[in-house]
Amino acid sequence: AASVVAPKYTSIKPLGDRVLVKIKEAEEKTLGGILLPSTAQSKPQGGEVVAVGEGRTIGKNKIDITVPTGAQIIYSKYAGTEVEFNDVKHLILKEDDIVGILETEDIKDLKPLNDRVFIKVAEAEEKTAGGLLLTETTKEKPSIGTVIAVGPGSLDEEGKITPLPVSTGSTVLYSKYAGNDFKGKDGSNYIALRASDVMAILS
Amino acid sequence: AASVVAPKYTSIKPLGDRVLVKIKEAEEKTLGGILLPSTAQSKPQGGEVVAVGEGRTIGKNKIDITVPTGAQIIYSKYAGTEVEFNDVKHLILKEDDIVGILETEDIKDLKPLNDRVFIKVAEAEEKTAGGLLLTETTKEKPSIGTVIAVGPGSLDEEGKITPLPVSTGSTVLYSKYAGNDFKGKDGSNYIALRASDVMAILS
Amino acid sequence: AASVVAPKYTSIKPLGDRVLVKIKEAEEKTLGGILLPSTAQSKPQGGEVVAVGEGRTIGKNKIDITVPTGAQIIYSKYAGTEVEFNDVKHLILKEDDIVGILETEDIKDLKPLNDRVFIKVAEAEEKTAGGLLLTETTKEKPSIGTVIAVGPGSLDEEGKITPLPVSTGSTVLYSKYAGNDFKGKDGSNYIALRASDVMAILS
Amino acid sequence: AASVVAPKYTSIKPLGDRVLVKIKEAEEKTLGGILLPSTAQSKPQGGEVVAVGEGRTIGKNKIDITVPTGAQIIYSKYAGTEVEFNDVKHLILKEDDIVGILETEDIKDLKPLNDRVFIKVAEAEEKTAGGLLLTETTKEKPSIGTVIAVGPGSLDEEGKITPLPVSTGSTVLYSKYAGNDFKGKDGSNYIALRASDVMAILS
Repeated sequence: AASVVAPKYTSIKPLGDRVLVKIKEAEEKTLGGILLPSTAQSKPQGGEVVAVGEGRTIGKNKIDITVPTGAQIIYSKYAGTEVEFNDVKHLILKEDDIVGILETEDIKDLKPLNDRVFIKVAEAEEKTAGGLLLTETTKEKPSIGTVIAVGPGSLDEEGKITPLPVSTGSTVLYSKYAGNDFKGKDGSNYIALRASDVMAILS
Repeated sequence: AASVVAPKYTSIKPLGDRVLVKIKEAEEKTLGGILLPSTAQSKPQGGEVVAVGEGRTIGKNKIDITVPTGAQIIYSKYAGTEVEFNDVKHLILKEDDIVGILETEDIKDLKPLNDRVFIKVAEAEEKTAGGLLLTETTKEKPSIGTVIAVGPGSLDEEGKITPLPVSTGSTVLYSKYAGNDFKGKDGSNYIALRASDVMAILS
Repeated sequence: AASVVAPKYTSIKPLGDRVLVKIKEAEEKTLGGILLPSTAQSKPQGGEVVAVGEGRTIGKNKIDITVPTGAQIIYSKYAGTEVEFNDVKHLILKEDDIVGILETEDIKDLKPLNDRVFIKVAEAEEKTAGGLLLTETTKEKPSIGTVIAVGPGSLDEEGKITPLPVSTGSTVLYSKYAGNDFKGKDGSNYIALRASDVMAILS
Repeated sequence: AASVVAPKYTSIKPLGDRVLVKIKEAEEKTLGGILLPSTAQSKPQGGEVVAVGEGRTIGKNKIDITVPTGAQIIYSKYAGTEVEFNDVKHLILKEDDIVGILETEDIKDLKPLNDRVFIKVAEAEEKTAGGLLLTETTKEKPSIGTVIAVGPGSLDEEGKITPLPVSTGSTVLYSKYAGNDFKGKDGSNYIALRASDVMAILS
């Protein structure tokens, strides 16, 4: 059960590379307009950043939190620690568990963070052009989709940002077991994953 | 069974980052004034430092033992190797397994070592203000408490000490599975844990 | 099942240290001229490099892909991810999973890559000279063979190549569990393995 | 079964940090003069170094093999790979698996290598002075013994040797699960272990 922070406390200041998120309960259920049966109901994954930690140091470099307070964010499914504060469910989360910033009500507008890319999964009929060949391979089947947004890049040891090798608009092959799946308002499927899980660019 | 050091030996000199501790058997049972049933009896965790090793080297830096001989210390529950010397039970212990120095008979006065913080666990009634909400989350429930003492800080690779981001007097959220639990003379609960297990500061 | 890349895509550009390989299906079965029963049938392990990634950076050094497009290669048995493109089975593969380049139809001409060496396994009769001694040892039994080709060498952190300590023509002792086995046209056995799995040179 | 190196080969040149050892079969059984029942029979652990590899490089430093060809050595029980060469059982061994050099027929004269120390286990009666106290501790019981020889020291990353903190003649406490046990000609017990497994010096 979530532990309860007694009302006399007015603020929670997360430490290090953590952020405090007020969970957006209600709207989630209708995210993407489809009421999923409770079993498959995707756990609430959205909320507002209400406080950020002081960041962390890698070697000699101090790295601040890049997400501003007040940002509406989407985070990885099983991340964070739940806390109830002023009768509202909050989550204490590592910054790296934030998938992206969402300024609208439709997931398609997600702005991925760090080294993540956001992909619109190719429509079913494209995938079965020519039909699926059942080869004896047990190898992991890659999926196809279009990159609709990319993060700023990944941090190296000295805190320098290296831009991602993938750009918006490219059609890509990716390993679908690595990402966070989402359903858009118009019913189409999206996936957010790390750039290193994108295998190739189709053109 | 503890091995026995024959009486003809007059001293034991621990090596490297080890210390030799004379275990304080009797007083333990009444530590905090409550006689626990033997099963739940907290193993003896206190004693006096009778000898220290020459310290260790990290890279080019020689790092001495910070605990002086004669100090009364509290150590982690399952740490060390038992030795009987002059018919008294001793323990050979790594310095990092020492939780703190205790100069009084009440655990509340514990002075934590290295990167550890000492927390007084919030009284029960504070925690159930508003009642516990049973959410379907299986996430680990953090606890609340007040920091009553902090260690000097943690050593980096070059042996430099970085002060802790937590200070005495703050009310904090922490993950309770990481610490060493103690009961004070007045029956209140205390926990000693690493600063990195403190998640947030409440104010 | 291999996923299908819809016909409207004309090219697949692999990312990072990956290469795209068109799998050579048919010829595999007669590689080495012996039709293996399908169970023991060695999985197809050959093909043509049709596209290469932009390489990777180790620390500050950019390391390009050393295999040119168009090269006929042999790769490790369970490596890569299968993709069907223009109705032909392709594989997306990490460069390090390529065993060597094969410009003829007989495996004996394999040119090993990176830190790999290619060995012709000593004929059976040589091995039983004097009969096998069944010692109570359960230690791993090394095998004997002749080095017929060596790779350019292994890359260190700065991308510098260190030549291998083994040269063509030497007879060597190696641990046989580490390699990829092949059968040549003339029925003799070959093995490709990392230089570090070669234990000694016989002379 | 040990693999057999056909007679036409006249020499085996180990690679890297490996050495080739001719196993001393017969004498082993009477090492220390007691015929152990075959089950407890200590596996042969002695032999003569007949060839050494070219050494290895750590970072920029080339580190040669310190053991000369012709040296009589004792090695760790389950180390190495067995090879039969000219009808004599040999072993290919990593240098670090060599416990020490033995120039006489009695194990007590063992000269430990690298960071190892050689200890004569304290006689039984010394250990039970005052009787064994059966405390409820499940902690690992240390043993007592006298250091009769120490290795030159351990190599750091730059190949520099740091002398060991233990010297010959000291009585020490050590964790007995870490060593290689031996029985001397006079029936007394010896143990070779790494200096880091010596916990304290008794005086």
